[in-house]
Amino acid sequence: MSLDKREFRRALGKFATGVTVVTTRDAEGEHFGVTASSFNSVSMDPPLILWSIDKGAYSLAAYRDAEHFVVNVLSDDQVEISNRFASRGEDKFAGIATEEGLGGVAKVKDAAAHFECRTWNVYEGGDHLILVGEVVRYGYREAGNALVFHNGRYAVPEPHPMLLPVDEQGALDGRLGKHLLYLLRQALAAYRGDFYPRLGSLGVNDKEWRVLTLLADRGPLAAEVLARRVAQPLADLDDTLSGLRERALVATDGESRVTLSEAGQALALRLLTMADDYERRLLEGLDPAEVGTLKAGLGRVVERLGATL
Amino acid sequence: MSLDKREFRRALGKFATGVTVVTTRDAEGEHFGVTASSFNSVSMDPPLILWSIDKGAYSLAAYRDAEHFVVNVLSDDQVEISNRFASRGEDKFAGIATEEGLGGVAKVKDAAAHFECRTWNVYEGGDHLILVGEVVRYGYREAGNALVFHNGRYAVPEPHPMLLPVDEQGALDGRLGKHLLYLLRQALAAYRGDFYPRLGSLGVNDKEWRVLTLLADRGPLAAEVLARRVAQPLADLDDTLSGLRERALVATDGESRVTLSEAGQALALRLLTMADDYERRLLEGLDPAEVGTLKAGLGRVVERLGATL
Repeated sequence: MSLDKREFRRALGKFATGVTVVTTRDAEGEHFGVTASSFNSVSMDPPLILWSIDKGAYSLAAYRDAEHFVVNVLSDDQVEISNRFASRGEDKFAGIATEEGLGGVAKVKDAAAHFECRTWNVYEGGDHLILVGEVVRYGYREAGNALVFHNGRYAVPEPHPMLLPVDEQGALDGRLGKHLLYLLRQALAAYRGDFYPRLGSLGVNDKEWRVLTLLADRGPLAAEVLARRVAQPLADLDDTLSGLRERALVATDGESRVTLSEAGQALALRLLTMADDYERRLLEGLDPAEVGTLKAGLGRVVERLGATL
Repeated sequence: MSLDKREFRRALGKFATGVTVVTTRDAEGEHFGVTASSFNSVSMDPPLILWSIDKGAYSLAAYRDAEHFVVNVLSDDQVEISNRFASRGEDKFAGIATEEGLGGVAKVKDAAAHFECRTWNVYEGGDHLILVGEVVRYGYREAGNALVFHNGRYAVPEPHPMLLPVDEQGALDGRLGKHLLYLLRQALAAYRGDFYPRLGSLGVNDKEWRVLTLLADRGPLAAEVLARRVAQPLADLDDTLSGLRERALVATDGESRVTLSEAGQALALRLLTMADDYERRLLEGLDPAEVGTLKAGLGRVVERLGATL
């Protein structure tokens, strides 16, 4: 089958996954680690999990021949670790806190969960190998929240709002319905669910919206900085930028920073105006002082929490 | 290895996944569908994906022998479809809108993505079989948001806030930083990240907190209703309830509804008081009228969006 790889990756990206770093150690004692989102559970009895590794990976032989490996499920504050092990850097472990796991394999500290495995089988999988491991030891952090990868971007799993119909919300007049946490969650879910699909009318998706408006807001940015700000790994940002470049909306300046073209600047301004209009209609009926209090109150929550975190 | 299955499932739940319904059709033309979160991509060339099926599944033979199957990646408004195909109901397809896919296999309408597959290989996987499919056709909805399964609960992927340090937020004085959407996302991320870990001091996790406070707020609820309200599939709610029952915090009344015991009621009130206290300290410095405006403003956003959705 002939298939457009960029489109196929986008389709696969609709399935949300966690992010893991799989570590191992070869016969010479050298440590290896690679970012993988292809992890999943297989069996309870015996306890088996699997993941897939690219046959073109530099470290293929180490994983294929390893007796043990560890799957480190990253938590939502370990984005930098994900980026580090997804790159081709020389010493990926430099500055990363680890503990010694099964067979001397490095375990990443503060991961949301660990699965220490004995290699159980290796299966053929096209341009990848499917590695099945028997879980010998495992652990997890009760409070640890997973890092999510979805639509080519890092995300966090927010409890499903299971939005009640509006008339039923009035009935939720107990103490819970008035909590700020519930109000925030419902307002955000409703806002996001209604707003993002409207971007389609201007021919952009939510990733492109983030890149364009951020560049309009902040000016030219290096790709690494931009990737961090839009929560995309560099490889996925490249994909977003290619699409924008094909439409001549962004370019690269003499200092290798991503910049808006004139057309990109115009589109970004239209997008910002659209967002302003949308918000104005949403808050219709609140007077300017009330809108000011609403926004200042949210800002205050962020500020206070930032100070106590 | 002897392993506590409930604990092992909890550890696996730290890895976030999407939710799929995998459909097939047997030689007699009967349709089958089963909810699976074990889906993942394997290879680009050839395009391969995999998922695992329980050897004890009623429909095992149909999937094992099928020439074709379709992976339907559910979107965030398809929770009921996930629940339906995870149950043992007689006619799972009743009332579910489908289209005809490869080999006559049913495709679930409005799914976030579809992968129509030819069975490529079937591998041994302990108490499961690993089914590898070659993707023959695929499609996705640009605006579709994935349903997420994490920590035994349904969730939605919220773009990663990549929280800036507080002093840098002051610098974000362009138009973006003042948008309600950004403020909501940052406030929610900061609130959740700071609040949930505090529940540990009263010996509960966030799932238990939801069940206990919801029962205190709404009174006894049937398990099906409770499952929907706390966004847990019934099997995972059972797990949460077992833990609460072991600590004599909940019981079942004569009408098969889940109720709080006296101890459960007392704990729920302490949890609600703790949440109230937390919120009061968070909003310190805002006068009562401002707090009222903040909450009413959020409520108004939810209400207006509920009306336009």
